[in-house]
Amino acid sequence: MHFVIDKDQLVQSVQDVMKAVSSRTTIPILTGIKIVAHDEGITITGSDSDISIERFIPIEEDDKQYVEVQRMGSIVLQARFFADIVKKLPASQVEIEVLERLTTRIRSGASEFNLNGLDPEEYPRLPEIAEENLFSIQADLLKQIIRQTVFAVSTSETRPILTGVNWRMEDGRLTCVATDSHRLAMRHATIESNTADLKFSNVVIPGKSLSELSKIIDDGNELIDIVVTENQILFKAKNILFYSRLLDGNYPDTSRLIPDESKTDVVLSTKKFLQAIERASLLAREGRNNVVKLVSLESKNMEISSNSPEIGKVFEHVEAQSFEGDEVKISFSAKYMMDALKAIDSADVVVSFTGAMRPFLIRPINEDSIVQLILPVRTY
Amino acid sequence: MHFVIDKDQLVQSVQDVMKAVSSRTTIPILTGIKIVAHDEGITITGSDSDISIERFIPIEEDDKQYVEVQRMGSIVLQARFFADIVKKLPASQVEIEVLERLTTRIRSGASEFNLNGLDPEEYPRLPEIAEENLFSIQADLLKQIIRQTVFAVSTSETRPILTGVNWRMEDGRLTCVATDSHRLAMRHATIESNTADLKFSNVVIPGKSLSELSKIIDDGNELIDIVVTENQILFKAKNILFYSRLLDGNYPDTSRLIPDESKTDVVLSTKKFLQAIERASLLAREGRNNVVKLVSLESKNMEISSNSPEIGKVFEHVEAQSFEGDEVKISFSAKYMMDALKAIDSADVVVSFTGAMRPFLIRPINEDSIVQLILPVRTY
Repeated sequence: MHFVIDKDQLVQSVQDVMKAVSSRTTIPILTGIKIVAHDEGITITGSDSDISIERFIPIEEDDKQYVEVQRMGSIVLQARFFADIVKKLPASQVEIEVLERLTTRIRSGASEFNLNGLDPEEYPRLPEIAEENLFSIQADLLKQIIRQTVFAVSTSETRPILTGVNWRMEDGRLTCVATDSHRLAMRHATIESNTADLKFSNVVIPGKSLSELSKIIDDGNELIDIVVTENQILFKAKNILFYSRLLDGNYPDTSRLIPDESKTDVVLSTKKFLQAIERASLLAREGRNNVVKLVSLESKNMEISSNSPEIGKVFEHVEAQSFEGDEVKISFSAKYMMDALKAIDSADVVVSFTGAMRPFLIRPINEDSIVQLILPVRTY
Repeated sequence: MHFVIDKDQLVQSVQDVMKAVSSRTTIPILTGIKIVAHDEGITITGSDSDISIERFIPIEEDDKQYVEVQRMGSIVLQARFFADIVKKLPASQVEIEVLERLTTRIRSGASEFNLNGLDPEEYPRLPEIAEENLFSIQADLLKQIIRQTVFAVSTSETRPILTGVNWRMEDGRLTCVATDSHRLAMRHATIESNTADLKFSNVVIPGKSLSELSKIIDDGNELIDIVVTENQILFKAKNILFYSRLLDGNYPDTSRLIPDESKTDVVLSTKKFLQAIERASLLAREGRNNVVKLVSLESKNMEISSNSPEIGKVFEHVEAQSFEGDEVKISFSAKYMMDALKAIDSADVVVSFTGAMRPFLIRPINEDSIVQLILPVRTY
């Protein structure tokens, strides 16, 4: 293998595939990244066996030449060293050549590295994915869906299935749900592609996969192709393939969790409510699991309070834009509320309560594509 | 105690004094910061007993009113909570009032905190410092001196005196030396103030104190007054007093360490040399203590190399601007060299060798105010 490549393209590609590489892998070859030089360009792959990322750098693109392949071939190089090295190389071009016995020479300007490579034949093959169940989402919408749901997955391995986000597709409508059994985030999206007959319900994508995917997809309206199989999902963006394993097991039915009527509806400024909760949580996070209390006082005045006997007390007041229904007195996790409010992009939210011990909902006004649900905490 | 204060002034002041507060203190009252309201304004103090920082906010300054004192008095509040709270308060003004039994009410906009205060009488008094040995340095120069020396202090407590920077003053010339016994940084500065008769030699300031001082002094040419006593040093900037304990013991005589002649002088571009060392250190930092080898090849070509058997080898080449004297073959810590080069602000450096096992010097060209010395490592 022998090629010369544009340094910036190489750095960016290595950085992307590094997101799949874990230093804690038990499979030694996966501490490396695989580089293949072929007649169309260079393909770089990183994997931790759950996530695999393949990045392609074409010989040329948009009238710019990025790669000149002198001899086709492949090699696996230690990911961490290779990534650190290419970032710091001095010239705008990098020459990479496999010499004898897997030794790989990397040259740029007056700098020369000779790295001990690993045998590319030992690198696991990426899953073969039949492109039957394919649909497409714009990059921006995909990233928004991920951001609005993934924070609510469980971080505990007690119920592994809850560490993923459940994606369901029916009648051209994608529904994404995440819950850690104390709160739930749900997002609907209409998929405008030729997918009328595409239907799946038990696709559960690890939260970590979605977080990493979100980092390497560029903002914009590029269409991302998504292929779903029995145990893998593949996201295809320009020059990037992102594979993730799906979680085994049945995702619980969450539809009955969401109350369809409410006893109180309060409309609040998202930002003012969030900031008041943030301040109240400064004391709440000591001890008692970050719990704050919300009480409706007279004339739309909502009081958020927290009491930490050793440190002190806090009282915050937020004026509701409208208040309908019964008085409210409820306690909940400040962290869950902050997460939920940050996931909602609209200026105002409606919070709907059905009782002090019943789950309550946070939604944008006049918009049902996103629902955040929080279970209250017993008042002390 | 009862006053209203400009929020930005309060936030900045609390942030400054927090630099002295340690969460690991064994003296409970020092987890707090002391606030005093008096007839000239508000004074805020933080301390870990090694460093004490006092910040003053005047009633008014530059025709702006910052403080309105309704009732004089004092209180000690939990530093971490108070700092987090003031940063997040909603309005541009903050009202602070001590109610009964040290409870302190903090109000801003629709936000109200009631914090449990601590007894200000228990807070230790700051050292009383007679202003006899006083001299002044411009803020920029002081920060430069600190930056160019403090990195070389020892991080090991084996010889505690080496964890400080030795300041000496004689004939209006300040000399600052730091060494961890493997490398040494020295900086001279002429002090243009009325200090012809000021003389001291065994002032050793903890490296940590200087690092923190550097962070809270604003850039610029403001004069910082410095007062030296037997066991304390006081830095006085506008509205800030910064006290540091001095280290006990005798600082070693380092003057004989610095060779006064050399066998080889090499002039190099600081940036190119630094970048080559940085790349070589990518492999050197594995195992063998980050050691790189420097060899002079023919015609001013300097080769920097490192060999890490498991990972690979690196060869870097830097063209010297001039080379005079014997050939060079020497090994040293890449980290020490990077630290030294980063401390030198000039575009080119002269590196002066007197043998493979003798300390060598890195200095700006035609400039003797700064000297960096490194002890080589035995070549393997």
